[in-house]
Amino acid sequence: MNSLLSEDFVLSRLARHFPNSHASLLLGRGDDAAVIKADKHLCVSSDLFLEDVHFRRSYFTPQEIGYKALAVNLSDMAACGAKPLGFTLCLGLPPRTEQMWLEDFFSGMAALAGQYDTILAGGDLSACEHLCIAVTIWGETVGDSLDLRRGGCKPGDFLFVVGRLGLARVGLRILEARGREAAPAWPAACAAHLRPLPQIEAGLVISGFADAENPPSVMDVSDGIARDLPRLLQTREGQGGEPVRQFGASLRLPPETIHPEVRRFALEQELDPVTEALLGGEDYALLGACAPDLLAKLRRAVPDLRPLGVVTEQPDIIANGKPLKAEGFDHFTTG
Amino acid sequence: MNSLLSEDFVLSRLARHFPNSHASLLLGRGDDAAVIKADKHLCVSSDLFLEDVHFRRSYFTPQEIGYKALAVNLSDMAACGAKPLGFTLCLGLPPRTEQMWLEDFFSGMAALAGQYDTILAGGDLSACEHLCIAVTIWGETVGDSLDLRRGGCKPGDFLFVVGRLGLARVGLRILEARGREAAPAWPAACAAHLRPLPQIEAGLVISGFADAENPPSVMDVSDGIARDLPRLLQTREGQGGEPVRQFGASLRLPPETIHPEVRRFALEQELDPVTEALLGGEDYALLGACAPDLLAKLRRAVPDLRPLGVVTEQPDIIANGKPLKAEGFDHFTTG
Repeated sequence: MNSLLSEDFVLSRLARHFPNSHASLLLGRGDDAAVIKADKHLCVSSDLFLEDVHFRRSYFTPQEIGYKALAVNLSDMAACGAKPLGFTLCLGLPPRTEQMWLEDFFSGMAALAGQYDTILAGGDLSACEHLCIAVTIWGETVGDSLDLRRGGCKPGDFLFVVGRLGLARVGLRILEARGREAAPAWPAACAAHLRPLPQIEAGLVISGFADAENPPSVMDVSDGIARDLPRLLQTREGQGGEPVRQFGASLRLPPETIHPEVRRFALEQELDPVTEALLGGEDYALLGACAPDLLAKLRRAVPDLRPLGVVTEQPDIIANGKPLKAEGFDHFTTG
Repeated sequence: MNSLLSEDFVLSRLARHFPNSHASLLLGRGDDAAVIKADKHLCVSSDLFLEDVHFRRSYFTPQEIGYKALAVNLSDMAACGAKPLGFTLCLGLPPRTEQMWLEDFFSGMAALAGQYDTILAGGDLSACEHLCIAVTIWGETVGDSLDLRRGGCKPGDFLFVVGRLGLARVGLRILEARGREAAPAWPAACAAHLRPLPQIEAGLVISGFADAENPPSVMDVSDGIARDLPRLLQTREGQGGEPVRQFGASLRLPPETIHPEVRRFALEQELDPVTEALLGGEDYALLGACAPDLLAKLRRAVPDLRPLGVVTEQPDIIANGKPLKAEGFDHFTTG
């Protein structure tokens, strides 16, 4: 099981790990294209997952690479309140890849796909110097509403979050600096980076409120609150050509809402734990805004949902009374 | 215009080249996912287009890279007889990429997208050591038929092709061995490799025959006839669990149907022009099979459609009376 790859081997292993029929598909893998039944509106999203950019083999197991490549896409479905249905996988594999590695990679991805009953419907295979993964996922909207999209909130609305903030970034920094050996001492942080939990169920429940008069706005947090929150707080371009406006927020993060490992890391590094939580990238939490009267209903429906603050007229972001220095993340300059 | 990239620059250029609304979309780029209207069934397909695997910067202009990355996906829509509607673009860019290069890349892709009224609906952006492109495309089926898929033919059916065979492979070999300077002496071959023509119109016309009692089977030729034809000639897995069967073909390629540049190249290299035509990869021609009584109707409807031979019970492929040595192409071993 440690010999190298052939195309036939890759396809035969793939066929073994991934079923090829699904209620949403008229035609699965093996033809020029898969055919999706027209039923409800489809949300569609694509993400790259690249070696040494988004993950390192030195501290990711092959199962975790397969898992996370799909999880980050599932998170986009969660943010639209969509039920994931299927995905395509473009896979560039170094020719020296071992068969056992591939088995493990597929098993990690297939287990997560099975958990959400999401079918691998097609894709492409190529040799590539570094491992290169591109997933396109689609899901059906629950009802016809588009109202979970960003930009619908206004001053006075409440902000909320489902999932942990800053934890995955602590995990990344621990793994980068100290390697996988350090993981047992930081179990939650490393797990948050290696196996992020897509908030599919919460997204579906929140989408049940999309028909409210003032429906919530929701997005997933992939670049950290400091960078993603302003995207939620920007108004949509109006039909009448109104200029886009940027609102701000006043956030309240009591220390007990920040994960103990984030607090421990901040203490160890002499950093502010609130800032650490808000800068954290790859949280894959859901971030939302809703009219004040909706918050209590949302909390009852989604027990993990926590209030984060309030939308303000002023475009700054204030966290626990202090302005947040929003470090920009640029994929080309921040590296 | 020769400075390096920032993420904001890439997104602003993209916004300038690609429109963000389309009759098929309820929501375009800029949110967690695009939303496609449920209307007709959707064909969906994904392809990788990787530097030094699928193209080289040394002889592709940036416009041609943008063009071809989309064209190979459009070809999959042609093979299903689907009208292309939209696509996502995952783009891994080396940080040293120049702004002018990116403008040209987008302009090449946007021009082709505009030609087929196909919208860029989303995607992802990352730094990457080598240029890495993954496109997922979708289109609507014309009618509800799935009958253009592979595997529906039987012995006695006629084979046909729309597009040139072997020409793109000659172009590849000329460009690899002699560089772009050689292109003027081999204009059709180099164009076939650099700017393949997706057979969208032919695919749509042929799909008009999908409701026939014995509808045609169609696929696109990306790995060459020698490798792709057996895929067309394999029967589908039966509902009753019948074993999959492999038919063969007797092909007839009169010399005058082989492009003069393929014949010239074969003469120059002391090769058999028929074999060269049938081994050719990246033709992006449509290859099909139909009942004998349908061929004349298809030829009237698609003037470029040419007969290629007949399906046989015996699983071998015979070309002009001689067995074709089917060289296998393996993405991992053939390189």
